[in-house]
Amino acid sequence: MTVRGPLVASSGDPAGVGPELLAKAWLTRADHDLAPFAVVASLSHMQSVAGAIPVRAITDLSQAADLFGAALPVLDLGPLDQTPGMPTHEGARMALASLERATALTVAGEASALVTGPIAKAELQKIGFSHPGQTEFVAAACGIAADDAVMMLAGPSLRVVPMTVHVALAAVPNLLTIDLIARRIRIAARALQRDFGLARPRIAVAGLNPHAGEQGRMGDEEIRVIAPAVEQLRAEGMGVTGPLAGDTMFHAEARERYDLAVCMYHDQALIPLKALDFNAGVNVTLGLPIIRTSPDHGTAFALAGTGRASAGPTVAAIRMAADCAARRANFA
Amino acid sequence: MTVRGPLVASSGDPAGVGPELLAKAWLTRADHDLAPFAVVASLSHMQSVAGAIPVRAITDLSQAADLFGAALPVLDLGPLDQTPGMPTHEGARMALASLERATALTVAGEASALVTGPIAKAELQKIGFSHPGQTEFVAAACGIAADDAVMMLAGPSLRVVPMTVHVALAAVPNLLTIDLIARRIRIAARALQRDFGLARPRIAVAGLNPHAGEQGRMGDEEIRVIAPAVEQLRAEGMGVTGPLAGDTMFHAEARERYDLAVCMYHDQALIPLKALDFNAGVNVTLGLPIIRTSPDHGTAFALAGTGRASAGPTVAAIRMAADCAARRANFA
Repeated sequence: MTVRGPLVASSGDPAGVGPELLAKAWLTRADHDLAPFAVVASLSHMQSVAGAIPVRAITDLSQAADLFGAALPVLDLGPLDQTPGMPTHEGARMALASLERATALTVAGEASALVTGPIAKAELQKIGFSHPGQTEFVAAACGIAADDAVMMLAGPSLRVVPMTVHVALAAVPNLLTIDLIARRIRIAARALQRDFGLARPRIAVAGLNPHAGEQGRMGDEEIRVIAPAVEQLRAEGMGVTGPLAGDTMFHAEARERYDLAVCMYHDQALIPLKALDFNAGVNVTLGLPIIRTSPDHGTAFALAGTGRASAGPTVAAIRMAADCAARRANFA
Repeated sequence: MTVRGPLVASSGDPAGVGPELLAKAWLTRADHDLAPFAVVASLSHMQSVAGAIPVRAITDLSQAADLFGAALPVLDLGPLDQTPGMPTHEGARMALASLERATALTVAGEASALVTGPIAKAELQKIGFSHPGQTEFVAAACGIAADDAVMMLAGPSLRVVPMTVHVALAAVPNLLTIDLIARRIRIAARALQRDFGLARPRIAVAGLNPHAGEQGRMGDEEIRVIAPAVEQLRAEGMGVTGPLAGDTMFHAEARERYDLAVCMYHDQALIPLKALDFNAGVNVTLGLPIIRTSPDHGTAFALAGTGRASAGPTVAAIRMAADCAARRANFA
């Protein structure tokens, strides 16, 4: 399989663990057979967090592959003075510049995939960032409606797609519609085929209520909304089952029956993922013209500079981005 | 540690897996060091499902301990003709009679603890059973308000108490009150001390909303209801923390920080429990004057008679009942 260019990573907030974890991930490039990647960041700041890890400037992404064996390639955004754990406006501006440049390079096809580092939404909002998160920013940069950019969390044990995410639980029932569920599952299924090598993805859809409502005895969203969406997709020939009782979907034997669990709300998706695959989860945005992954954790300001943050999720995000890019490039 | 009498088990629906799993559990009595238990059931039916496993009638629970090494002791409720997997009114009446007799024996102090087999609520309702489930029946038999009988699910990795259970998800936010949460956590904490040997139980309380609401940005139940309940309990000197983000509470490292996770709704509690401890979960009713446990599964009519149902949860329920009874008997 072939990939067009190197991967490109945005640094995330420079006061967080993003930059140091990219340097740590580079150290494991041989162990994890990592595809070449470059970081868009302040070279001086990357050098300060990388310690003994060699970091070197490149001026063009095409230089990354040759350099990658010897040093972590950095597209320099200029000097930055930043204390770990202490976010600043200047740091937030650097995080945004990194995200913008890395996204643009991927959209332009110079990078084969985008890996975004963890940002602090509150810090970015202070400097005028108007998107709810990086996913929506990247979707907009790709010309895709935010609703059609579908978040999937993937770990070694489980892949989940939540239908709703950062909303109050009380708001969830009214947000679920047949169209929303059917449209997002179509997007997810297409991405599993194109980017994850699953010719006929098996998709299990959770109910909203306990025991998937028990035929309407505990809530009717399964009958009114979820089952009709599943029926629509099955009529289109897709391998979709449900609505299933949430509590019995995630044990080892149940997980063997599907490739993706579609959940109705944040905790229904993220509780099993993090219980089973903590520190190994990757956030992938499905439905974009580019490949975009992200480690499934935040800036962890309290850990920045301590050396205690795990590079596991960053390594997993880089590997998944490379795998998806290779599969998509070869997708018939 | 000493226990007063044998354990007593109700059979559950005779068309389900309950009776056969009690016989299978008896077979493992030496491996699992099971305390003597007797079953309240139709002797002829128990013999038919037990196959080669020896089953013998007793007329009084006091005979159970001596017999237990040689055969499964049964308090006979009379003959029953029952096909596995085909529930009948006659079978439902037998299940109810078994539950009533086993509960009465435990309330009277003749049995040291009660283990209830799985019933089919729909079948019991057809013969006039008016309780939502066995827990409420047992609570009523003990003279305890149903609201004060607190369901805990316990597995090798995790103990969880859901604040609401079999209600539509949309109804959950309005059911949560400071009083409900504080009262149930007090009951749970007392039971962990008395029956589970935890002198100072560490109790982690989940939020309702994603990321526990992020300071009210996604729902305010944490601010209005959950945090005040936690503060009240902490002011009473209890080791209660929260509200915590549900999705990061259940990985191995997080679980080391508490003895009990208090959850706001069914799936928040049962998804992690069943993802981590499938086929090993025990349902324990806290706050009763008696000890009551149950395997955490249903009648599994489709598996009845096939020999494929696992006795693991039944064995775990019997062991936990015996352990709790011994601890309570010795509680200062």
